Amino acid sequence: MSDKTTSPIPNLSRRSLLKAGLATGLTAGAVGSARAGGDPLITEIQEWNRYLGDGVQARPYGTPSEFEAHVVRRDVEWLTASTESSVNFTPLHELDGILTPNGLCFERHHGGIAEIDPAAHRLMINGLVDTPLVFTMEDLKRFPRENRIYFLECAANSGMEWRGSQLNGCQYTHGMVHCVMYTGVPLKLILEEAGIKTNAKWVMPEGADSSAMTRSIPMEKALDDCLVAFKMNGEALRPEQGYPLRLVVPGWEGNMWVKWLRRIEVGDQPWHQREETSKYTDLLENGKARRFTWVMDPKSVITSPSPQAPVPHGKGPLVISGIAWSGNGRISRVDVSLDGGRNWTTARLDGPSLPKAMHRFYLDIDWDGSDLLLQSRAMDEHGFYQPTKNELRAERGENSIYHNNGIQTWHVKADGTAENVEVS
Amino acid sequence: MSDKTTSPIPNLSRRSLLKAGLATGLTAGAVGSARAGGDPLITEIQEWNRYLGDGVQARPYGTPSEFEAHVVRRDVEWLTASTESSVNFTPLHELDGILTPNGLCFERHHGGIAEIDPAAHRLMINGLVDTPLVFTMEDLKRFPRENRIYFLECAANSGMEWRGSQLNGCQYTHGMVHCVMYTGVPLKLILEEAGIKTNAKWVMPEGADSSAMTRSIPMEKALDDCLVAFKMNGEALRPEQGYPLRLVVPGWEGNMWVKWLRRIEVGDQPWHQREETSKYTDLLENGKARRFTWVMDPKSVITSPSPQAPVPHGKGPLVISGIAWSGNGRISRVDVSLDGGRNWTTARLDGPSLPKAMHRFYLDIDWDGSDLLLQSRAMDEHGFYQPTKNELRAERGENSIYHNNGIQTWHVKADGTAENVEVS
Repeated sequence: MSDKTTSPIPNLSRRSLLKAGLATGLTAGAVGSARAGGDPLITEIQEWNRYLGDGVQARPYGTPSEFEAHVVRRDVEWLTASTESSVNFTPLHELDGILTPNGLCFERHHGGIAEIDPAAHRLMINGLVDTPLVFTMEDLKRFPRENRIYFLECAANSGMEWRGSQLNGCQYTHGMVHCVMYTGVPLKLILEEAGIKTNAKWVMPEGADSSAMTRSIPMEKALDDCLVAFKMNGEALRPEQGYPLRLVVPGWEGNMWVKWLRRIEVGDQPWHQREETSKYTDLLENGKARRFTWVMDPKSVITSPSPQAPVPHGKGPLVISGIAWSGNGRISRVDVSLDGGRNWTTARLDGPSLPKAMHRFYLDIDWDGSDLLLQSRAMDEHGFYQPTKNELRAERGENSIYHNNGIQTWHVKADGTAENVEVS
Repeated sequence: MSDKTTSPIPNLSRRSLLKAGLATGLTAGAVGSARAGGDPLITEIQEWNRYLGDGVQARPYGTPSEFEAHVVRRDVEWLTASTESSVNFTPLHELDGILTPNGLCFERHHGGIAEIDPAAHRLMINGLVDTPLVFTMEDLKRFPRENRIYFLECAANSGMEWRGSQLNGCQYTHGMVHCVMYTGVPLKLILEEAGIKTNAKWVMPEGADSSAMTRSIPMEKALDDCLVAFKMNGEALRPEQGYPLRLVVPGWEGNMWVKWLRRIEVGDQPWHQREETSKYTDLLENGKARRFTWVMDPKSVITSPSPQAPVPHGKGPLVISGIAWSGNGRISRVDVSLDGGRNWTTARLDGPSLPKAMHRFYLDIDWDGSDLLLQSRAMDEHGFYQPTKNELRAERGENSIYHNNGIQTWHVKADGTAENVEVS
């Protein structure tokens, strides 16, 4: 990742010097430690103080530091039979704030990543409309547009938690969620341009990838806050997120946010497509299924400490950090428990609070070094709150992999390591 | 950028088919065009509908589409003598919304990019404090932290506009600005940990790069909203933005946001360092200089259409889009002129409105196809507004390259092309 050709010292020797310096046995002290006798890493001139580094245009499109190479999306090979219809996970334990960088937004594909030249992309509106229309990308960019920060969560996020703790880390248990700013045209404007017939009650977005993803969406939602989006976090959509065009369905399950959006059919009833019947319905204990479970209910998870982000220091000041979101609107409150749900403390929400977006919470504690059973519980502005996993199981059984917003528990041990556990 | 090894069809043949398809002479029509006889790009099955694309983990850290390869930071070679002390520019004309992706945030270095292992990085607080302290990165992550979206603008942004229109595109005239979400510890908490002596009135941050950047900041600002930041847009700072630690000085000129932050000295008077005397002061016509011109005053620019983003279609619906920001707080209003400042229309502000952050504005017009002299004029919540360039020159002459927040003009011609012009 690093181009050192402009540096007067070769890469390897610089790195070797650095490693030699680190081998002197320095350890991190308590917060605000005054290091007796001085710390050579601050009192002595370092290699990076001494020599010119890379100039501008070493990387016209920038990349992370080589010291952050471990911060990547990861998959779980045994979860799926192919990589083209598969999923990987956002490294939530390495992130902070409420935004996900585009390069780290989890991927879920049903037929691999379609690579589409935007000049060759079209969006058709047909069905129960006055005038069927075909738009180029340039056509769409002539409509008034909006910018909104929204979370996107796969309905199957935390799906493996229905039957117990099988994956050890919030990247895997909760990493099918991301949150970015979208730029797009309100779907309402596109539908109005075509003219909706009076008996039109549903729309069906269709993807241009090899899976031709299709879902049914009620007209009320289509006319409310859905966007036909072409940018995320300021720049063009990434290929794996539907470049050049995706549907944004705020607060609703990610599968409905059709990527590589090529067509929107308008109809008078739902289509009962494969991905809303055999998949993305919630099979109950009695063999019946909940269908059209679109809204992602309030949910939260502690991202640090967590199994992949152990406490790197001993007792004393400890920042407990996590994320919360709700498809109903804003998060109004998050409580944190240190003892598996017996006692709760209201966490500090920090950063912008936007509807159907991620929220960041913190609880700053003075850790006594004893075992913790960390939990978080989110509540949204409409009073909906996050249930325990057992409350969910009592209601819905364990047949489904969808819509598990149960409270997560991390067991943090005295040595700082953590693991995914269940408390009864 | 693209790994096609998992695809059943080789890359070249797929691309050739696509190009053949495009050669049939399709052109973009008006908004919502109903294409008579059908458009084969929507009525026929395309290559990307037919075959599986790349699976997950093709790119564990994602990259933009190959069709976006032109969206990069660019420099102007004749502006600086070296690349290590130089600048490149954010491609504002290709972006939308209020956030800048980390890979596209402009770079300004005085000694190249320091590459620092976070395990070897230290922050010292010394000078007029009760206890000089040295922090590791892990130490800093034990303090309560905040997440805030702020713009960062170089004091020299639009510097070449003082003497007329020399650079043809908003990337070059206004691209030394970006806007991201920072995660960091309030500087106030760090200073309080060390204990500030009663005669302490100033702080001096120092960078760990080879230029050892140093600036004087009054204590009032240090205790107000400054952050010691380690993340941007959710992930670790990028190397060129000061990884692993930078100072955030909201609303104030970018040079003060010291990167690779290694030390903060506390003192009773400013230090009058090189970068606040011979540089980053504003030389006036009479040979005297304005010094300590920290706040970035309200400013705006139309990003599309603009010289690098011509109108790709004829008359009819046209989205005029731009950005505005103020170091004083929120933007309250942006006006747009189509005729070089004679008549003004209030633009639509869209997206979150946050203090000292970027704001996005739009004016959706029905273009009659005649020449436009596009201008935008920002006002902030404190009533400060953006002056004309001539008003600025009358006040400050043309000796300085700093703090030019004058109104920018693009001449949009009937053929859709645009260029940087001045109107008197």
